[in-house]
Amino acid sequence: MNEIKAVGLLGGGVIGAGWAARCVLNGLDAVVCDLDPEAERKLDEVLANAERAYRKMTLAPVNRRGKLRVTRDIEDAAAGADFVQESLPENESVKIPLLKRAAAAARPATIIGSSTSGLLPSRLQAEIAHPERFVVGHPFNPVYLMPLVEVCGGDKTSEAVKARAVAFYGSIGMRPLMLRKEIDGFIADRLMEALWREALWLVNDDIATAEEIDDALRFGPGLRWAFMGTFLTYRVAGGEAGMRHFMAQFGPTLKWPWTKLMDVPELTDDLLDKIVAQSDAQAGHTSIRDWERLRDDCLVSVMQGLRGHDFGAGAVLKAYDKALFDRAHGTETQEDVDPKQPLRLHSARVLPEWIDYNGHMTESRYLQVFGDGTDALLRHIGADADYHARGFSYYTVETHIRHLREVGVDAALHVTTQVLGADEKRIHMFHSLYESKSETLLATSENMQLHVGTAGGRACAAAPEVLSKVQAIANAQAALPVPEGAGRAISMPSPKA
Amino acid sequence: MNEIKAVGLLGGGVIGAGWAARCVLNGLDAVVCDLDPEAERKLDEVLANAERAYRKMTLAPVNRRGKLRVTRDIEDAAAGADFVQESLPENESVKIPLLKRAAAAARPATIIGSSTSGLLPSRLQAEIAHPERFVVGHPFNPVYLMPLVEVCGGDKTSEAVKARAVAFYGSIGMRPLMLRKEIDGFIADRLMEALWREALWLVNDDIATAEEIDDALRFGPGLRWAFMGTFLTYRVAGGEAGMRHFMAQFGPTLKWPWTKLMDVPELTDDLLDKIVAQSDAQAGHTSIRDWERLRDDCLVSVMQGLRGHDFGAGAVLKAYDKALFDRAHGTETQEDVDPKQPLRLHSARVLPEWIDYNGHMTESRYLQVFGDGTDALLRHIGADADYHARGFSYYTVETHIRHLREVGVDAALHVTTQVLGADEKRIHMFHSLYESKSETLLATSENMQLHVGTAGGRACAAAPEVLSKVQAIANAQAALPVPEGAGRAISMPSPKA
Repeated sequence: MNEIKAVGLLGGGVIGAGWAARCVLNGLDAVVCDLDPEAERKLDEVLANAERAYRKMTLAPVNRRGKLRVTRDIEDAAAGADFVQESLPENESVKIPLLKRAAAAARPATIIGSSTSGLLPSRLQAEIAHPERFVVGHPFNPVYLMPLVEVCGGDKTSEAVKARAVAFYGSIGMRPLMLRKEIDGFIADRLMEALWREALWLVNDDIATAEEIDDALRFGPGLRWAFMGTFLTYRVAGGEAGMRHFMAQFGPTLKWPWTKLMDVPELTDDLLDKIVAQSDAQAGHTSIRDWERLRDDCLVSVMQGLRGHDFGAGAVLKAYDKALFDRAHGTETQEDVDPKQPLRLHSARVLPEWIDYNGHMTESRYLQVFGDGTDALLRHIGADADYHARGFSYYTVETHIRHLREVGVDAALHVTTQVLGADEKRIHMFHSLYESKSETLLATSENMQLHVGTAGGRACAAAPEVLSKVQAIANAQAALPVPEGAGRAISMPSPKA
Repeated sequence: MNEIKAVGLLGGGVIGAGWAARCVLNGLDAVVCDLDPEAERKLDEVLANAERAYRKMTLAPVNRRGKLRVTRDIEDAAAGADFVQESLPENESVKIPLLKRAAAAARPATIIGSSTSGLLPSRLQAEIAHPERFVVGHPFNPVYLMPLVEVCGGDKTSEAVKARAVAFYGSIGMRPLMLRKEIDGFIADRLMEALWREALWLVNDDIATAEEIDDALRFGPGLRWAFMGTFLTYRVAGGEAGMRHFMAQFGPTLKWPWTKLMDVPELTDDLLDKIVAQSDAQAGHTSIRDWERLRDDCLVSVMQGLRGHDFGAGAVLKAYDKALFDRAHGTETQEDVDPKQPLRLHSARVLPEWIDYNGHMTESRYLQVFGDGTDALLRHIGADADYHARGFSYYTVETHIRHLREVGVDAALHVTTQVLGADEKRIHMFHSLYESKSETLLATSENMQLHVGTAGGRACAAAPEVLSKVQAIANAQAALPVPEGAGRAISMPSPKA
């Protein structure tokens, strides 16, 4: 599906580390070139944040993590890469010579991308070998979560390379925006910069503090900009009368003295001190790491909220989810499994947010892991995303869980599954949940799945190819003993004699 | 709690109707002055949208709806009002004489607020009676959902009136931002205007279309601005090195030619035509009413997502929710719970992230809601946080769920609980999950709770006061029939004859 297997990342700062996390969590191998002696630690911290966020973001089995390696040698990073992404300081005199070295070391077909937020691709590509494969892919922080990547070619960039870059960025869950023209600052940063200059004026003139300006955004227009931009917001505000009416009504404010952007505030020491002091006051005693996690949690929640409406960043997440489920299907079937034993098709790890007030994994997360085990079995027999698209699915109609032991945060878990019976409409299965390291049985779940046509929500017979697969498993496992706890009903013990 | 019972609204356009909806849904009576013969229809449409959004936004029982009346007479709107809010066209020659009439008709203590998005309060208040009670309260569209209201006094506005206005806007679920100084365009609109001017230049110069600009915002910086503003976003991006480092690194872009805001684009017919055509292309065949509902749905989901983190607009919503519940609580405790019936102790709403690939609530969320129901029962019998602190808890050892019907996003749910048996170490309970509006039974869950000493994780007898409470419930409910599905084991149906 994706021609890119290995990426070379030039620079391991905030942006480069974000690319590393996004790539590795999407199953790509990454070699990061960074001279910072602390590069490994910093990359690991960003990767930990990113893994945490991905587990919250998607229920889909995230790809097998790619390999991450740090090098001090730019040629080493570029030589084996299918895609090179440069995230070095925003300075042509730094970027141009290092891009030239990377391009010389890379295979001629390797795309050379740059994360520059504002330098012109025609200037950056001018001196590199095979300049037609150079393209800007400007991401936003945190790169592992933010969907937008602005794609911009220079004079020499080929159309084919632009298309390949768009496909690559899309394949790792991003939303590429192909630019029509190259321009300093591209689009998003020009909008951000205009707002930022106005914000600096407001602080400079003591109209508002940093915190008040942030509040004016996040309780107001920022909420709408999260899913509609400025044009659509205004159009909708214009109501039935439409955009022309809106422009006629509010056009005149363009002539009013509502911004000071006719010139640029001087970044004096006084202004700088004021901003730093206000920013410190706003951030309080919360550490940057905690702010990062709060930012990621909020981003994930906003995108998940929008996913329900299949709109904006929510539509990007929904498509990404589907791609992850589809990919998981591909790899699973290749693993050889002994069909006579309970099938081991699903693994998970206990996340901090799965812990309840007793300090153990909360009961509903047991069912979540069991449900993921059910989904893994269903994909295994071909009841996958394509099957759903054809209008069929299995619904759980009954579940019986026995909680045998508690489990704490970070434990590695796996589920084994025994098919106790299957007919054309039903699958009767029995899952066992283990703590993987000690192979301790934590819980069991017996469930009945009913095959349905999703349009009418009514039971119907499974497709023959699905039925034959599940019956083959049931037959192969028929010699296994009925697991302890199967067929059990809940009751109080008899009163003591 | 709130001194304001009745509001007089001058103008029933998009903003005035939004105020009417917010006030009426917060239990206030509103008289709207508008000369439009279609004012009633337009108000009813906005109110319908607002009610729809509120039902999704909060589980709390929304206040009894206030009365809404339309008048053509400005004195009629102002005379009986505890608070007058003016939302007339943005033109001093319209606002000033009408504000003067309203102030003359209103009681002297009545606050006169203005929704102006940019005119100066000192000029608007100059000629009115008792100018000290005039204040700007600048809201954002849709007024019934957007938290922000910029509060700004003029030269003559008293501090007491500012404080009363802040309290009033807060009491109807808004987030007042008190401005330090009066300034054309206040804060949020200055930021919006700066961005808007840049956006117009990008269209004017054919760098990007309206849709592309909106995409650059909503897949990028707009997502972050929904919960952090620009200063905190940059601070966090600066990482460990802090705000001074960030400013040092990115300060220089202020000198770069990244905006064209040194002057203002001329709104020629050509530019106007281009914007209208691009906006039409972007909006497609979706009607404005549908766009409005999508906007509201997205706003609600974003705020609900942030509520989980008690941050930004989510913190506003959480506090509002609590206030609504507290207000309702006064009434609830007076309702007698019939101890002979299944207890209704827990409600929930289906969140977007609870939805699986089938478009329904995923199975583990059923158990989450049931588990919350179990916790509610445990708190009800005194096995609460204090009890845990004493080293005791109940653990779920066995659960049997029957999934009877699917449920979609936003549905309101509640759980009723029957105690089937209890001894000193066990509680055997049976939950029923309903979709609250239609009282449709969605699922049942039978479970066995084991009382444990949390230090050793071993079963032990419950404290006498807890035991007596749960046994009292079991005795009171003893006459209820055993619920359908209790005591059930899972099995395949017998093969057909």
